[in-house]
Amino acid sequence: MSIITLLTDFGIGDEYVGVMKGVILSVNPSAVTIDITHQIEPQDLIQAAYLLKSIYRFFPQQSVHVTVVDPGVGSQRAILALEHRNHLFLAPDNGVLTLLLDEGLTGPVVRVDNDRYFLKPVSSTFHGRDIFAPVAAHLSMGIGIDRLGAQMGIKDLVRLNIPRPWISADNELVGTIVSIDRFGNLITSIEKAMLEKFCTLDKQKALSIKVGGWTIRGVTDHYSSTPPQQPLALIGSRGYLELAVNCGNARRHFKAAKGDAVRLSLKA
Amino acid sequence: MSIITLLTDFGIGDEYVGVMKGVILSVNPSAVTIDITHQIEPQDLIQAAYLLKSIYRFFPQQSVHVTVVDPGVGSQRAILALEHRNHLFLAPDNGVLTLLLDEGLTGPVVRVDNDRYFLKPVSSTFHGRDIFAPVAAHLSMGIGIDRLGAQMGIKDLVRLNIPRPWISADNELVGTIVSIDRFGNLITSIEKAMLEKFCTLDKQKALSIKVGGWTIRGVTDHYSSTPPQQPLALIGSRGYLELAVNCGNARRHFKAAKGDAVRLSLKA
Amino acid sequence: MSIITLLTDFGIGDEYVGVMKGVILSVNPSAVTIDITHQIEPQDLIQAAYLLKSIYRFFPQQSVHVTVVDPGVGSQRAILALEHRNHLFLAPDNGVLTLLLDEGLTGPVVRVDNDRYFLKPVSSTFHGRDIFAPVAAHLSMGIGIDRLGAQMGIKDLVRLNIPRPWISADNELVGTIVSIDRFGNLITSIEKAMLEKFCTLDKQKALSIKVGGWTIRGVTDHYSSTPPQQPLALIGSRGYLELAVNCGNARRHFKAAKGDAVRLSLKA
Repeated sequence: MSIITLLTDFGIGDEYVGVMKGVILSVNPSAVTIDITHQIEPQDLIQAAYLLKSIYRFFPQQSVHVTVVDPGVGSQRAILALEHRNHLFLAPDNGVLTLLLDEGLTGPVVRVDNDRYFLKPVSSTFHGRDIFAPVAAHLSMGIGIDRLGAQMGIKDLVRLNIPRPWISADNELVGTIVSIDRFGNLITSIEKAMLEKFCTLDKQKALSIKVGGWTIRGVTDHYSSTPPQQPLALIGSRGYLELAVNCGNARRHFKAAKGDAVRLSLKA
Repeated sequence: MSIITLLTDFGIGDEYVGVMKGVILSVNPSAVTIDITHQIEPQDLIQAAYLLKSIYRFFPQQSVHVTVVDPGVGSQRAILALEHRNHLFLAPDNGVLTLLLDEGLTGPVVRVDNDRYFLKPVSSTFHGRDIFAPVAAHLSMGIGIDRLGAQMGIKDLVRLNIPRPWISADNELVGTIVSIDRFGNLITSIEKAMLEKFCTLDKQKALSIKVGGWTIRGVTDHYSSTPPQQPLALIGSRGYLELAVNCGNARRHFKAAKGDAVRLSLKA
Repeated sequence: MSIITLLTDFGIGDEYVGVMKGVILSVNPSAVTIDITHQIEPQDLIQAAYLLKSIYRFFPQQSVHVTVVDPGVGSQRAILALEHRNHLFLAPDNGVLTLLLDEGLTGPVVRVDNDRYFLKPVSSTFHGRDIFAPVAAHLSMGIGIDRLGAQMGIKDLVRLNIPRPWISADNELVGTIVSIDRFGNLITSIEKAMLEKFCTLDKQKALSIKVGGWTIRGVTDHYSSTPPQQPLALIGSRGYLELAVNCGNARRHFKAAKGDAVRLSLKA
């Protein structure tokens, strides 16, 4: 089984993703490629970092997860290969791996520079095709990542400055809206474990959750726990606090945007 | 051969479809997943019902067809598995199967509740990942649907109130526009067999077909049967009466929308 | 290995692509289908011609490349199968193969009319499903293209009138913008070899490149060769001259559109 997932900002209107798959199959005819999404906003590394963190554990071990959101293509930025929890990852060294690094890597990281595994001549504009695709295909066939280049220290890797939830002077847990899905659900930066640390499951039902000028009362379990068109908060499928509207669209309801603050308080 | 088709309203900008495929491959590494579409308007059950009916017969027998258009996720709505004409179907019990039921099911229906085949813990927000995907994967490996839960009576299933074509006092056959495709073709609710019952093939050439303030004369065979930019009516690839414009866009030409009436008459 | 690529203007909101894959798998259960794109502007044959030319060589030999951009479906236009550089192609005879023909075909072309390989009854509205899909599946299983129909002369094939770059009285190399990708990069009709014929690599650094009222100085190697938000010109991944903006969007920067002229000159 050779599974390769693809997470890019290439869109689906051009030939870029298809060409990457052609190169993959040329190296490993048994590879199965799975699209995570190609609709990352061009060069939105934070969005890509969250998606990557949220998807890999649902794939079989030894899957190869390829992220090509790469504004620095052709510059001197490194390409990284790493092993983590029995999965393999390939990504530019531009911070898109930040949330994985935060989990505490369980395996080595190498700088990919052995051009034996590249498609030649290597262009300076499409490393997705010339480096990521053929290297991923070789990884999916079982070559060791130590064959790809020299090991790097974790501390030398680029990290994004992703805003973390914090506790305000007023004793609020303050997070931000990190992404908004097709249904208009607002996914925040507040992970389940943070919320549990902030207050017990019991008290979560009494939380006041503020976004814009609105207040939601309490964390619930599922979208239909309120009447249709009513807002609610729950732990979403990615494992983060999410604001939604039952059979409706929270983005429109709250006029919310990525980056907006979400404030949780135990006071009435 | 283990084919699983996916029909959802998840869009392609989020990770939801990719994650479902990860879960499927984790259970059945040989599964081949095929996207029908993920662009169903959020929670548009009627559109999903028509697509599901129109696609399954083009796949190999024993394919598993998964529909996740599921506004009631997390509520008490059931999930159904059924066999029909040597295909397997998995869908919420919310009416999305209505048009299949109308064909007269050829096999049993069960309520899926044997959590042995679920991904645990089962969230209350993403049954696509936690129930539909792993159950589909097990079905694709050949487990019998009787293993998934208790059999249900056909009469107990939820049905959509899908408007059927009818004969007016004026002896018109009246249908509605059910969907509009990328080319602007207007697909109506009038099936080929209904049209043939309404009038002979011979007389179809003289039919007057009214939509908005426009009249099309006669049913033809192919898009290029009229000069470019001229409207026409034909039996489309789904097997329903369709209004089109040769090398043009009927939606724009007729300023038409889903739900608009289409009236057929033998009078001049 | 049975790889079939799909390049269409079907979009991804309808069931058309999924149904084609169902038909393919019904004929050849081992076929692997790869989407190039389904977002070709309805009936934009030139765009499809460029994509087809740019993708095939990245796939394994004997891959079957299917193009269904087919405004003439149901009319008398032929469907062509051909062999070229150890790849197989299937497309309507409407000019979409023009740029392949320009490469000098290395194998025979046949008119596909042996209905033994068709899905019957053949509709007059969806040859993608009824002819292209099953014929591609048979080709991917190794049947010879001579089994599909009679050979055709190259001169009898429809060709598009694709505007070629030319040298102006003022000794400029004049091309046009042929496509614009998701990042706003402007891909021109000027191939690498034409540019090299026009001036040496050395002199390319001094070229003046005009689009709209703007001038870019010199051809560079990679997107980050200028400061962020600055325009540049390079040979893009398709092998054509491309105008871009580092970490920005050249379409917006230059207010450019498909068809706009791009003028290269060695004068200051």
